[in-house]
Amino acid sequence: MKFIPQFSDVTAAGDAISSHVHRTPVLTSHQLDAISGAQLFFKCENFQKVGAFKFRGATNAILNLTDDQRRSGVVTHSSGNHAAALTHAAVSRGVKAYIVMPSTAPEVKKRAVAGYGAEITFCEPTLAAREAAAAEVIARTGATMVHPFDNFYIIAGQGTAALEMLHDGPEPDAVIAPVGGGGLLSGTSITVRHLLPHAKIYGAEPALADDAARSLHSGVIQPALPPATIADGLLTSLCERTFTIISKNVDDILTVSEEEIIEAMRLVWERMKIIIEPSSAVPVAAVLANRGLFTGMKVAVIISGGNVDLAKLPFRQHA
Amino acid sequence: MKFIPQFSDVTAAGDAISSHVHRTPVLTSHQLDAISGAQLFFKCENFQKVGAFKFRGATNAILNLTDDQRRSGVVTHSSGNHAAALTHAAVSRGVKAYIVMPSTAPEVKKRAVAGYGAEITFCEPTLAAREAAAAEVIARTGATMVHPFDNFYIIAGQGTAALEMLHDGPEPDAVIAPVGGGGLLSGTSITVRHLLPHAKIYGAEPALADDAARSLHSGVIQPALPPATIADGLLTSLCERTFTIISKNVDDILTVSEEEIIEAMRLVWERMKIIIEPSSAVPVAAVLANRGLFTGMKVAVIISGGNVDLAKLPFRQHA
Repeated sequence: MKFIPQFSDVTAAGDAISSHVHRTPVLTSHQLDAISGAQLFFKCENFQKVGAFKFRGATNAILNLTDDQRRSGVVTHSSGNHAAALTHAAVSRGVKAYIVMPSTAPEVKKRAVAGYGAEITFCEPTLAAREAAAAEVIARTGATMVHPFDNFYIIAGQGTAALEMLHDGPEPDAVIAPVGGGGLLSGTSITVRHLLPHAKIYGAEPALADDAARSLHSGVIQPALPPATIADGLLTSLCERTFTIISKNVDDILTVSEEEIIEAMRLVWERMKIIIEPSSAVPVAAVLANRGLFTGMKVAVIISGGNVDLAKLPFRQHA
Repeated sequence: MKFIPQFSDVTAAGDAISSHVHRTPVLTSHQLDAISGAQLFFKCENFQKVGAFKFRGATNAILNLTDDQRRSGVVTHSSGNHAAALTHAAVSRGVKAYIVMPSTAPEVKKRAVAGYGAEITFCEPTLAAREAAAAEVIARTGATMVHPFDNFYIIAGQGTAALEMLHDGPEPDAVIAPVGGGGLLSGTSITVRHLLPHAKIYGAEPALADDAARSLHSGVIQPALPPATIADGLLTSLCERTFTIISKNVDDILTVSEEEIIEAMRLVWERMKIIIEPSSAVPVAAVLANRGLFTGMKVAVIISGGNVDLAKLPFRQHA
């Protein structure tokens, strides 16, 4: 039973998925550099298939199913991007995808999951309700649970974004990624800690969902808070697996306010003309809010996704 | 007095401005291809400096000023993108920029022009008011008028976007660009008609501002209509110069409804994760609304810009 992926598992994932995923660009912005005082490099997983890095881990998980597992399909519960990613990775290879989604998920994510061919079960937006609904699907179908982040192959797959970034971009002094359940940050940290032992590695999290920061600082996994942040991809708490990896590799987890998230999102939309989701604005906001940490440094930012509900945007008229 | 730019004037502009402008990417989208039934190639001038192709022509105009003209500065009236582009091109080379803007211009464009260092004069949103205000500036300062499109160097500069596109992308069967005053479509058509004599060349225009289509069909320049379209960059009418070029080179001008513009803009934002302004959604909408014309063809679409007021977006909840 393999619990913690090593760097070799990330490179194996990279080899396995490379023909199935987009090699997303690393973008720069003179304007964001001027505003931040740092040199920023954005690894743009908003341009990944299904609009998020989650397609990397999901594809790696599907490619590592046994033949028996493939025949019974896969199931997961997710706030959206993992569900879309797992469905697209599964269905495009003839594997059935059963998705348990909270009824409160953004419309754009519900439409995406349905469009990719999932069989959807809606439930209340609590972890207990999701797990119960997923257990029922497994009992009925024999499907294999592919957890959004507490999964060896998922974490190894998420680490391939940083692998491409370090290959295609310059050598960064610091790398920062958003943290929800910790799959992306775990995979990123495995890659970066191996290739650049002295680089700083940061997670970024909404202050209204700062369970990962408190977990890291206290040494004990803290439960998720009630959903109150616009960064709807970052609501879940760490698991033992991601907590272990993050505790070992990550220098700190920085938290930002809702206002800082919205302002960072607006800056990227207005100046870079690319659509990033609120969860992706969190590490951008963390860089802007912590100038002292990053001034003059090359900072690589993982832009996790670009799925937003265009009918429900947070932008208001400037004063 | 040089009236109509030739292809050699476009290549001269390309040589002159290449170190000053971004070589913007040519993007593709499997999803937009599936929806349109064509193979689409997007020349993404939303990623150009100041967020619009206008920086090409403006830079070319500034680089072709005489020393005397440089000392007295430049003036223009514009709905926004040309003003920002001319200001940035001028001020970054030590040339003063006087801008006459309608008071109704989007906030994001007013802020951009001010931020680039223009001296702004606001006026009523009519052509007569703009011209009167510009004449007053010229009388006071001796500045040189750089018209948004009725200008030899502007048109030659705008033609460089197509020049890059034909170099970097595949050979298209058809090229389509939005048309307001006709500077972009004129420059594009000079480039494409020379390099690909048999390619189809289309303009795209809002039905609520269809003066260019009616001009082309009637053979006589039609005046602009009252501003009623969301595509605020396409409100002006053709001039003799752009009408002459477009009549000679362009196969047809296609018109689209406001609903088609908004839906095309939503599609590009949601599927491609890039921000395009309503005027840029007009040619996308025209391709989607005219499947019979484009099915199976390689269609190059000039995405003219990405400057939108994020506090005033047209997206509503899907039914």
